[in-house]
Amino acid sequence: MHILIIGAAGMVGRKLSAALAAAGQVGGRQITRLTLADVVAPAPVEFAGGMETATADLSAPGAAASLVAARPDLVFHLAAIVSGEAEADFDKGYRVNLDGFRLLLEAIRHEGGKAPYVPRLVFTSSIAVFGAPFPEAIGDEFHSTPLTSYGTQKAIDELLLNDYSRRGFVDGIGIRLPTIVIRPGKPNLAASGFFSNILREPLVGQEAVLPVGRDVRHWFASPRAAVGFLLHAAQLDTARLGWRRSLSAPGLSATVGEEIEALRRVAGERAVRLIREVPDEKIAAMVAGWPRNFEARRARELGFMAEASMDEIIRAHIEDELGGRIGL
Amino acid sequence: MHILIIGAAGMVGRKLSAALAAAGQVGGRQITRLTLADVVAPAPVEFAGGMETATADLSAPGAAASLVAARPDLVFHLAAIVSGEAEADFDKGYRVNLDGFRLLLEAIRHEGGKAPYVPRLVFTSSIAVFGAPFPEAIGDEFHSTPLTSYGTQKAIDELLLNDYSRRGFVDGIGIRLPTIVIRPGKPNLAASGFFSNILREPLVGQEAVLPVGRDVRHWFASPRAAVGFLLHAAQLDTARLGWRRSLSAPGLSATVGEEIEALRRVAGERAVRLIREVPDEKIAAMVAGWPRNFEARRARELGFMAEASMDEIIRAHIEDELGGRIGL
Repeated sequence: MHILIIGAAGMVGRKLSAALAAAGQVGGRQITRLTLADVVAPAPVEFAGGMETATADLSAPGAAASLVAARPDLVFHLAAIVSGEAEADFDKGYRVNLDGFRLLLEAIRHEGGKAPYVPRLVFTSSIAVFGAPFPEAIGDEFHSTPLTSYGTQKAIDELLLNDYSRRGFVDGIGIRLPTIVIRPGKPNLAASGFFSNILREPLVGQEAVLPVGRDVRHWFASPRAAVGFLLHAAQLDTARLGWRRSLSAPGLSATVGEEIEALRRVAGERAVRLIREVPDEKIAAMVAGWPRNFEARRARELGFMAEASMDEIIRAHIEDELGGRIGL
Repeated sequence: MHILIIGAAGMVGRKLSAALAAAGQVGGRQITRLTLADVVAPAPVEFAGGMETATADLSAPGAAASLVAARPDLVFHLAAIVSGEAEADFDKGYRVNLDGFRLLLEAIRHEGGKAPYVPRLVFTSSIAVFGAPFPEAIGDEFHSTPLTSYGTQKAIDELLLNDYSRRGFVDGIGIRLPTIVIRPGKPNLAASGFFSNILREPLVGQEAVLPVGRDVRHWFASPRAAVGFLLHAAQLDTARLGWRRSLSAPGLSATVGEEIEALRRVAGERAVRLIREVPDEKIAAMVAGWPRNFEARRARELGFMAEASMDEIIRAHIEDELGGRIGL
């Protein structure tokens, strides 16, 4: 089978590309060709079959059609302008996150108009489709009332994915990813960055800043779990979804205090002492509007799996990013 | 104030235009200018102030900008490709119902970029944003999982209306209208037409066909109530909505049997005998997927009002359409 990954240069895209290349198959079907696309050239991965990289901006005229012309059997769409940038640049957010996705759907539909073609399309949505006020644990039938343009664009994409699937143009499935922890790399300016920073930095002997209280609760999954969701979505029997093609992925609801206790158990008191509490009211106010917990019953029943403890999440990071060793 | 009605040639648009022209004011502000726009030329209404009609297809380049250039204070957007046509012509439905609405929002945003301008925008959404399975009474926080392209387009429009309002580009409010009963005019081919036909036709001595069982339950409001919703939305303090700018309007949950009993009370046995039961399994199957009841708690708390009985709905029709006399 031929797989196209759009957004292959991002953190999840790189891990997914590597996982697919290493497995060589999806759901028992051999991968013969792997196309890695992004707005910046994705790094190639080691792969026994055919591998190619493509630089493409989906929102540019003809770009989607050209990617789809090779009729990939399975398409992952991970690309997005992130929350902060979509809020700062209104036009760019809508152009990439909404129009880009719609152009991809249209390209697939028109390709199918030439000769039968209904690829599986795995779309990464986000818990940002939900906006406060919400219940302590958000259920599978709770409405989408996003409080960001990014969340709005993702919620619209989910509706389009549903309708194009119902009409038989594509075989879509959307996964609302939890906040990814521990995000590898350097601390970034994302408001949610501290959830990762307070674990990742101490594990390599660096200080990290905690801008909110220890009672703040949020919804997490590891990068490894996120890749697992996408691979599971790629081979799921979508008839089980009916016409509700998007799902809140399972995850772990944990407080900052629970993150810190897990860090203490896995890496000791010395690591915990590297967390510096510097309250930031602006960040605290933003975080207060974020989801804290999900039921995710549907996704669990469909076989999606996430970590059951913060200890597991930290250990996954140590294995996948630190070669199994804490760098304290 | 200057009011623009887009979709003024439709059934609700005509009644709304006439109501505004007759009242001469909205929320105590005098109406000085009334612009009636539609894809076909709307009939002028009798109005003491400035009145003009415009033929415009919102999805055509420049059309929205040209309507908005006069900077109306209040815009009603009622125009849509209806459910059946949006399902039959995929491109047309998306072009008019999604792109047309987005072009209107963009035109308002760009007009506001020249000099401050944030008009009130009243948008008619639909209960078609909901798709089965749903609870017996749909609550205000139930998710949108439409089962038609029309419902998808309306759900997307609601998300856009929210985001453009949150960003301060427009002051939007969306009203999800119940099925309108009694729809004036001739029987049409809409699958939902029988809900009106079995009341309207017997009231003028004509036969009507009932294709489903008497236990079928659905969600109704009169044309008079629909106009009332839009007028109330035009003057509501939208701060009370927060960033959840769309509402399920109140209505009446009633069975076909209850429609028939109300007809018997208002117009007698002779009217009821004109209903011919001709079961149609295809229509029955479609109707089984439609909403039956809504809580509409938010809308009621915000002062939206609908009829409390089918008798009232029938009497409103007799007053508004039959000059107060049953034509049996």
